[in-house]
Amino acid sequence: MLSKRFLTGILASKSQKISRIDPLKNTHIGSSPQRKDALAKVTGRAKYTADMDMRGMLHGKIFRSTIAHGRVTSLDCSRAEALEGVVAVVTYDDCRGIVFPTAGHPYAIPPARNDRADRNLLTDRIRLYGDEIAAVVAEDPVTAEKALELIEVEYEEYPFYLDPEDAVKEDAVHIHDGGNILGQNSLSLGEEDPEEVFKEAAHIIEDIYESPQVQHCHMENHICYAYKDDADRIVVVSSTQIPHIARRIMAHAFSMPFSKFRVIKPVIGGGFGNKQDVVLEPLTAFLTMKCSGRPVMIDLSREECMAWTRSRHGMRHYMKTGVDRSGRIIAKTLKSYGTNGAYASHCHSVVAKQGGDFLRHYPASRGSSFQGYTVYTNTATAGAMRGYGIPQINFAVESHMDDVARAIGMDPVEFRKINVIKEGQADPVGKLKLDSYGLSACFEKGLEYIGWEKKRELYKDQTGEFRRGIGFASFGYATGVWPISQEIAGARITMNQDGTVQLQVGATELGQGSTTVFCQMAAETLGISYEMVNLNSTTDTDMDPFDTGAYASRQTFVTGNAVHEAAVQLKAKVLARAAARLEREADSLDIRDARIVEAESGADLIGLDEIALDSYYHLPDSGVMTADVSTQTKTNPQSWGVTVAEVEVDMQTGKVKVLDICNIHDCGRVLNPLLAEGQVQGGMSMSLGFGLSEIMLYDPNTGRPLNNNLLDYKLPTSMDTPELGVKFTPVHENSAAYGSKSLGEPPAISPASAVRNAVLHASGVGINSLPINPQKLFEAFKKADVLNKETINV
Amino acid sequence: MLSKRFLTGILASKSQKISRIDPLKNTHIGSSPQRKDALAKVTGRAKYTADMDMRGMLHGKIFRSTIAHGRVTSLDCSRAEALEGVVAVVTYDDCRGIVFPTAGHPYAIPPARNDRADRNLLTDRIRLYGDEIAAVVAEDPVTAEKALELIEVEYEEYPFYLDPEDAVKEDAVHIHDGGNILGQNSLSLGEEDPEEVFKEAAHIIEDIYESPQVQHCHMENHICYAYKDDADRIVVVSSTQIPHIARRIMAHAFSMPFSKFRVIKPVIGGGFGNKQDVVLEPLTAFLTMKCSGRPVMIDLSREECMAWTRSRHGMRHYMKTGVDRSGRIIAKTLKSYGTNGAYASHCHSVVAKQGGDFLRHYPASRGSSFQGYTVYTNTATAGAMRGYGIPQINFAVESHMDDVARAIGMDPVEFRKINVIKEGQADPVGKLKLDSYGLSACFEKGLEYIGWEKKRELYKDQTGEFRRGIGFASFGYATGVWPISQEIAGARITMNQDGTVQLQVGATELGQGSTTVFCQMAAETLGISYEMVNLNSTTDTDMDPFDTGAYASRQTFVTGNAVHEAAVQLKAKVLARAAARLEREADSLDIRDARIVEAESGADLIGLDEIALDSYYHLPDSGVMTADVSTQTKTNPQSWGVTVAEVEVDMQTGKVKVLDICNIHDCGRVLNPLLAEGQVQGGMSMSLGFGLSEIMLYDPNTGRPLNNNLLDYKLPTSMDTPELGVKFTPVHENSAAYGSKSLGEPPAISPASAVRNAVLHASGVGINSLPINPQKLFEAFKKADVLNKETINV
Repeated sequence: MLSKRFLTGILASKSQKISRIDPLKNTHIGSSPQRKDALAKVTGRAKYTADMDMRGMLHGKIFRSTIAHGRVTSLDCSRAEALEGVVAVVTYDDCRGIVFPTAGHPYAIPPARNDRADRNLLTDRIRLYGDEIAAVVAEDPVTAEKALELIEVEYEEYPFYLDPEDAVKEDAVHIHDGGNILGQNSLSLGEEDPEEVFKEAAHIIEDIYESPQVQHCHMENHICYAYKDDADRIVVVSSTQIPHIARRIMAHAFSMPFSKFRVIKPVIGGGFGNKQDVVLEPLTAFLTMKCSGRPVMIDLSREECMAWTRSRHGMRHYMKTGVDRSGRIIAKTLKSYGTNGAYASHCHSVVAKQGGDFLRHYPASRGSSFQGYTVYTNTATAGAMRGYGIPQINFAVESHMDDVARAIGMDPVEFRKINVIKEGQADPVGKLKLDSYGLSACFEKGLEYIGWEKKRELYKDQTGEFRRGIGFASFGYATGVWPISQEIAGARITMNQDGTVQLQVGATELGQGSTTVFCQMAAETLGISYEMVNLNSTTDTDMDPFDTGAYASRQTFVTGNAVHEAAVQLKAKVLARAAARLEREADSLDIRDARIVEAESGADLIGLDEIALDSYYHLPDSGVMTADVSTQTKTNPQSWGVTVAEVEVDMQTGKVKVLDICNIHDCGRVLNPLLAEGQVQGGMSMSLGFGLSEIMLYDPNTGRPLNNNLLDYKLPTSMDTPELGVKFTPVHENSAAYGSKSLGEPPAISPASAVRNAVLHASGVGINSLPINPQKLFEAFKKADVLNKETINV
Repeated sequence: MLSKRFLTGILASKSQKISRIDPLKNTHIGSSPQRKDALAKVTGRAKYTADMDMRGMLHGKIFRSTIAHGRVTSLDCSRAEALEGVVAVVTYDDCRGIVFPTAGHPYAIPPARNDRADRNLLTDRIRLYGDEIAAVVAEDPVTAEKALELIEVEYEEYPFYLDPEDAVKEDAVHIHDGGNILGQNSLSLGEEDPEEVFKEAAHIIEDIYESPQVQHCHMENHICYAYKDDADRIVVVSSTQIPHIARRIMAHAFSMPFSKFRVIKPVIGGGFGNKQDVVLEPLTAFLTMKCSGRPVMIDLSREECMAWTRSRHGMRHYMKTGVDRSGRIIAKTLKSYGTNGAYASHCHSVVAKQGGDFLRHYPASRGSSFQGYTVYTNTATAGAMRGYGIPQINFAVESHMDDVARAIGMDPVEFRKINVIKEGQADPVGKLKLDSYGLSACFEKGLEYIGWEKKRELYKDQTGEFRRGIGFASFGYATGVWPISQEIAGARITMNQDGTVQLQVGATELGQGSTTVFCQMAAETLGISYEMVNLNSTTDTDMDPFDTGAYASRQTFVTGNAVHEAAVQLKAKVLARAAARLEREADSLDIRDARIVEAESGADLIGLDEIALDSYYHLPDSGVMTADVSTQTKTNPQSWGVTVAEVEVDMQTGKVKVLDICNIHDCGRVLNPLLAEGQVQGGMSMSLGFGLSEIMLYDPNTGRPLNNNLLDYKLPTSMDTPELGVKFTPVHENSAAYGSKSLGEPPAISPASAVRNAVLHASGVGINSLPINPQKLFEAFKKADVLNKETINV
């Protein structure tokens, strides 16, 4: 059974109709036209990386360690090299000195602001079970696989650490030079030292919350191939979210100019942040260099992808909150340990981001502080994953909000309302002025939807095997990375001969529908139909404008601004040409429904197609009309939302059934309701897996991953997933060309938290570590002896 | 043995070295850096269309007629359709109404100015042996081939015509509605009626000259595939010279918007004008539509390519010249019959162009006229071929110049000098002012090279079996198509992070080295090294700027102007950014050797790479620097040149041995001497084949092509080809950004004529029909009984 996570992108186009345009008032924004890639995806015509056969393609496989920590003492590849069909075997010895960071962050010119480069292309210093020692290239994948079995290796083993708090112990073996604390973040807010303020608090509540390493489980595994082109440059075709960044990281890794690399991104089957790291690109580039420029493909198996690409950071949060008599949080502190895994990736920024969120969302009135440790462990490397640390902190904070409210005898939503960030407040962390604020409306809509007061009352004092409860959680989320990092995007639009346009962006379509939405934007500004905008969803760093890529829920916002600017410039050129032809003033004209009209009266003057054809073929006066822009965005609006959930808990087995769940979002203007809904449902499904069933398991004796496959890893299937309610409280965000804010990641933040709180409401038991699976509930219920008690609810 | 024609492109890069740059004065123009595609081509890494495997590729084959003229009376495809592995069989019945012109001309908005659309996608009205009746699509090419054999057809046969003068007879069956005269051109020059002027001439010389249909014989046959992409658009990947024009012709053929088609041109193995027609593109597009968007490839065999793509027009010229006592041509007339073949292509413009050349090159002082007929015949369709009618008229005119000189007892070069177009004269036909003129210098250099006077004297009065002679011919040739048609080109340059640039043009690299030369141009203007300019030699109509393509020897001139403009604009942006950073005035700065320098002193200020990196990643102020231009060119300079040749004729066998031959060109500034030399040698080799051995033969009883393969068609091999001398008399053409004029086609014009005149000089026998092969000479020598006579030379 496919996960609902896989399907939402496709399902979103199921009931779509071609957009209809009011001839006098184009309204593409807010409509849901058929996805540009709908037909190709449902017919199987869309070309993913694995579909891009190249003549003479070689296949690479990675030889991985079978210990979790140690070093290689001897390696013998001679039998592998001798196997017929093997073209090359490379080991750590062939690539010493090729060290790079894998995180797909925008580059910063000051070296200190860039990512930790601790990744060797191949290594004899083993840091996790499955670490990459050598690679085999063969004429076919089966031969490559056989060759792996012929490689002989011996190791010296070290103790290994699966838990960050084990890895930071004084006597722990250093996984990397410099010790096991990869990053340390401190942030504080407010005038006073929280520890001092606690002394004056009416209540102090302390708790520990934990969330495990989980995996993205995008439909298409990591896959990449590289070859040398006819100008002797290295072309890397990869299922990546960040083609331009991948190019830059390879240039740095190999100490070669940026321009020696070209990165092409075909159609992608999802990424969720896991393809915001360069996992395969440098190695395939290296292998093609070693094979005379022949194409070399590495196509990871699901097992490899789950264990040896990236994961969500497992987090442990030590939380302490002081509240005054009125229920106001006056001080709070957080100490977080992040399970980084074996190599640096997005580590420091994920941990920092969740710390900022902790301080921001329910700000303490007098003082708060955060201390975060990102710790090397001998587990899968943690990187970017949808929500970028916020699902973890949201689980901790929102659980804690319920726990505190319960402790002080308040309704948990009342308690939140007192403490949550208010309209008009500047972002206390990033110091940016916030424009649109729809969080209060989300609260109200959510409470109304779930029938908050009625059901809180109704589910009091339950007995019996099946008990019900409702839960609530809220969140805020940024749109992009400004001002921490660069926000830049490019768009180019060319007017075709028929009045249609060719739009190019450097932004990455990875299934989320960005191609469709950018086409809606261009149509809106240009006054043409959606069908008249063409945009290849493939990205090519040689051809497409520069854009840092798909992450941080930035694209519709940041790239949208670039599309708008390009469309405005192109429209001005069209109107100037039309004005010359019609002998009128350009500013008296407009484009509506692909016709040049008199702006004031709307009177039809001439077809856009005629002006366009003229620009190509007018014998004495031709010139193709294009606009090519690169724009910077220096705002970062906050998206808001809540989840409300109702559950039924089987008190005997610990099984949780989600009866009802709804996300309510303020994501600014909803650009495409159907895609937005699909995006939200996908995120909710991901969060429900995070909340109820997903966890990456390791053998405590060997450090071997135990469930790196879709049978043993409990990704929720469609059958596990309830109906997912989606509501919006649209407001217009003035700093966005089309009024929108982030919606890519926010849906994945709060459902797990709301379900946890609903389980608490139903059972009286608050589970502080995810996933809330039957085993855990069974143990907790047994311990609390709940079957023999009434659920006591406040 | 491969023809030298095939090899010159590759050979040209053999002895190349990386360009070295004077740091204070970049001089890329005039250097011969390593071709951008050299490595990929010699290593086999370059990807041609046949190398572009696509998963699920289907293969199309064409079912062709086995009569030369008639119609299909019954067609049964049922057995073919039933064959396992056959996916579709389409016939003329499936595509009635899909009619289009195939010639790759720039479009003109007035319908009357466009090409004759007489081509059905498939046809039951048979107009040549091998006409296209049906097409089979199968899972593999062998099955498709087998299916062709299962198609049953019956015909009604009509008389067929291999000679245009047979086809214009009153009782001839019309090959197309409207009769067999496809086009008629009349041009005249001078105040007086030449027929009246003849009455006053001292000498009147009349002759008939003939040149046969020949074939381009480019190394890579026609090959093309089409599929539907993820936006349901039709992508056509084709070995074409004219991607943007192919897109337009398909749009018109299928009555669909231009933008529904995307054309991609991979690396090409030559075209020589044959790929300036849309031969396969519409059919492959149609077949993919019939096969649910699956990719369908048609890969023509050499036999198909030679007989059923395009050829050079066979021409017959009736020429009459009146000369006064001083040797001045006072009047001349020409009637030409062009063998058009079965379908319209470049017909009218080829015949018109050679008529203009007739009037222009040796203008008659009082009156001249030209009448041209382009006649449908039941032979291979004639289209564009390197020289576009001028090799044929050059053979006629230059032979005639020698014949007239001989008749009036003058040295043939003296006679030419009196009559040839002079410096400062406006082009009498196109009425354009001519700027640079190096023809006199070419004359002098040629005469000196061959030792004209000495050898004319030396080879007088020869006897014996082997006799030697020298010959001369001159030509002029346009650069582009202005003002007859549109001249427009586009270029886009993006500054990469490392100070290198990505150049994009819509012009077509087809092996001639345009990629290399455009990179030299951009480097020159931007002040960076040649290695710092990247240009993909693939063309993609979705991505690359609009340009009409590779024909008319236009690209280095017209597209060069666009590259220059884009480079100037980009440089201005770089200097503005550098000025802001350095706090100086932009116009006090320059770029030299990839450094920003003080323009006046040359003092080094900062690296271009630093400015470039800044433009991407400067946190408060970034913006990628690009320039995207579309420029029109409204001049059309004339290139000039001569060929001198020395031959030895075996009087017994009729075998001609070229002892020495040299082309001397005025092509403006020589942009890349080594590529220019390769270009000239390739053209000379082509002209020697045209002069001495090549001819397309038909069975007079059936109309079947007899020698459509490289065994029976006598393309000269490397062993047949003498050393080819190349000289230039460079002048600077002011209307070109980099000073150049045409050199693509001119080398192929005059060698055949010079050899013909050398044979005349050696043997006393002037052969008026090409090729001058041993059979023809043997017959002529026998008839003239030359073995028993002295060669009488003037």
